[in-house]
Amino acid sequence: MTDASHFEAHARKIIARCRKLATFSEDATGTRRTFLSSPMRDCHREIAEWLRASGAKVSVDAAGNLRGFYAATEAAAPRLLIGSHLDTVPNAGAFDGVLGVVLAVALLECLDPRRLPFSVEVLGFSEEEGVRFGVPFIGSRALVGRVDEELLNRRDGNGVSVGEAIRVVGLNPADMPQAARTDDVLAFLEFHIEQGPVLDALERPLGVVEAIVAQTREEFRFAGQANHAGTTPMHLRHDALAGAAEWMAAVERTARSRPGLVATVGQVEAKPGAVNVIPGTVRMTLDVRHRSPETCADAVDSLSKEAKQIADRRGLEVTERRLLEQKAVPMDDFLVGQIEKTIRGIGCDPHRMTSGAGHDAMILAEKVPAAMIFLRSPGGISHDPAESVLDEDVAKALECGLCLLDQLARSSEFLKRTCRA
Amino acid sequence: MTDASHFEAHARKIIARCRKLATFSEDATGTRRTFLSSPMRDCHREIAEWLRASGAKVSVDAAGNLRGFYAATEAAAPRLLIGSHLDTVPNAGAFDGVLGVVLAVALLECLDPRRLPFSVEVLGFSEEEGVRFGVPFIGSRALVGRVDEELLNRRDGNGVSVGEAIRVVGLNPADMPQAARTDDVLAFLEFHIEQGPVLDALERPLGVVEAIVAQTREEFRFAGQANHAGTTPMHLRHDALAGAAEWMAAVERTARSRPGLVATVGQVEAKPGAVNVIPGTVRMTLDVRHRSPETCADAVDSLSKEAKQIADRRGLEVTERRLLEQKAVPMDDFLVGQIEKTIRGIGCDPHRMTSGAGHDAMILAEKVPAAMIFLRSPGGISHDPAESVLDEDVAKALECGLCLLDQLARSSEFLKRTCRA
Repeated sequence: MTDASHFEAHARKIIARCRKLATFSEDATGTRRTFLSSPMRDCHREIAEWLRASGAKVSVDAAGNLRGFYAATEAAAPRLLIGSHLDTVPNAGAFDGVLGVVLAVALLECLDPRRLPFSVEVLGFSEEEGVRFGVPFIGSRALVGRVDEELLNRRDGNGVSVGEAIRVVGLNPADMPQAARTDDVLAFLEFHIEQGPVLDALERPLGVVEAIVAQTREEFRFAGQANHAGTTPMHLRHDALAGAAEWMAAVERTARSRPGLVATVGQVEAKPGAVNVIPGTVRMTLDVRHRSPETCADAVDSLSKEAKQIADRRGLEVTERRLLEQKAVPMDDFLVGQIEKTIRGIGCDPHRMTSGAGHDAMILAEKVPAAMIFLRSPGGISHDPAESVLDEDVAKALECGLCLLDQLARSSEFLKRTCRA
Repeated sequence: MTDASHFEAHARKIIARCRKLATFSEDATGTRRTFLSSPMRDCHREIAEWLRASGAKVSVDAAGNLRGFYAATEAAAPRLLIGSHLDTVPNAGAFDGVLGVVLAVALLECLDPRRLPFSVEVLGFSEEEGVRFGVPFIGSRALVGRVDEELLNRRDGNGVSVGEAIRVVGLNPADMPQAARTDDVLAFLEFHIEQGPVLDALERPLGVVEAIVAQTREEFRFAGQANHAGTTPMHLRHDALAGAAEWMAAVERTARSRPGLVATVGQVEAKPGAVNVIPGTVRMTLDVRHRSPETCADAVDSLSKEAKQIADRRGLEVTERRLLEQKAVPMDDFLVGQIEKTIRGIGCDPHRMTSGAGHDAMILAEKVPAAMIFLRSPGGISHDPAESVLDEDVAKALECGLCLLDQLARSSEFLKRTCRA
């Protein structure tokens, strides 16, 4: 068997495993799997079998993260973490998160019985999407010591708290400090589908993430005068929606004029909302992202000024409210370089890119050097049952992962790095 | 007492009567009065007293219209109809419709005991707004013979049909033909608040309506691709809301470029409607009005083309659905001229205008010469408890009405006109 056909066989198995895990769902039709639910525990059982068969020692930590520890050549060796999340959105695809865990398992299978100068711990995070408790990243927050009392007391739609959900499956929130131990960690590595169209448009299988973008969300409200659509001449109107439309055009124009910037109006609500009444108020949301927090802040600032100008000119009032401000998170330079080199080494054209979405790697980066490898998302489709990956891209990702492990094992610079904690 | 102070005293009484009638409501707070409801019958009782005191014979026809017949000098004389509607929208003002009826009563009070060469019938239409059955103009439709079986079987939110609502108060739908008798009618005259800001902006108390505008309502849907607001670069988006915003700007631009045209997007709904998701579909309504049906059709046509161009350029789909098409209704030329002359005669500057909203006069015009006189709406406010009229404008309207009656009584051209039926 050639190397290529070897990786392709593994890739088919990886995809089949992801598809199987997608059947573990809280919903009768479609995939939905949230924090420590019964299908999540089925998922743990299944992956635990694969992990044990590849020589790893399996546990579930106090935050419900599945862990598979693959020992190094020496007991005192440092750890490399590889993984992603096992929870899903409602009506999910089969690959968002899960693929990164199943790929990590396959890396162990390819290694076994070979050992490296560092141990490899596979991580299946318990909760990244935030569906059950309205708070994302519970699993990865546990690794950086950010599962606090407030989070443990947060309740789901049925009134069950995070702490109760942990205890009911026999785990103990008091063991959280053990889950947070990262002093021996060299790095965190996450494979994830891109969930966007960039690699697909470039026809490249793999990308390396340089940074997770800064993100600002705001609410804008335009207020004018609701009035009769038949009896109010154009020049006597204070139409909140006409003002809002002018501003939405500015949002798009602003984003297009600055490379790498994305800006989105995702919600719009016009009141009173009758066919024959001029809208008196319009509420909209703005989501702005860029790898540079300055560019992000600048764009929001300029759109805020533009809203005021439009409102003044039209006799409207505009108000603005910050909903979210998230800093950009750079990935580890050294690892980005190593990944780029590896991708090139397996005959692919690497693409340095930013991640427009948040990921567990963003949380881990608070304490350990972190990096992400994106796999092409055909059609850019995600959070949808039509979400997919190509066999050959998964084969390339696996090959890249193995080469990277070997490359890091040979790198004295990597091995002497210490965790930031 | 001078003429002016005489009319001003009447005006204060008219306004007080309208305010009193506004307390007859189906809602504990705010005015809502619909077809043949108990507060509507209280309203009938109250107005009937005023009518009888002024020498009129009172009845309620099969469609629930209150009628006050003020006989002419001779029994065989033709009839002049004067009136408006007594029903209201929810949370209504005190003058929309009602003022036209109360003014007509005051005209009889000013005439009494003098008689004219035509009888005057005051009409309080039972239902113009369409609140109870979702169908407007039930009262005036009865006068043009358009209350058919379909309408009688139409049901309200409680499952009560129009026919049942008529029978339950002791009226008989079989008497509808009698309500529809207009062969002896010379004309229909309606006083109504403008419900718009035009006269207020011009600082004129009264306007004469030349035509009720043509009206087209459409639904437009833009469909693109819902996608992640963070991971989808601007140049790879098919944002339905960005396309919709561009089109809404075109709606405003088109209306502003053609004198007298109004165009309104009153409803907008973007889906999936999440802060961090690019809208995949947007549904909007368009309401276009102009006194010329050609200009109206032309504008809709041009906006339809523009929607297609925008959609093509952005890789969106656009679909369009006609919701309503209402022809323009010209008012009677002779009457418009007579009213203009009368307004000038009482020392006011008459303003010829179109009505952007539908009115009972539009229905009556199918069978009899019809005309409308608008009273200034301060601030253009209507369908709101803040709706108002000025004492002096009501005084002018009453004076104008009386002069008009005298002028028509002297006009052989008017007296020899026969009904179009």
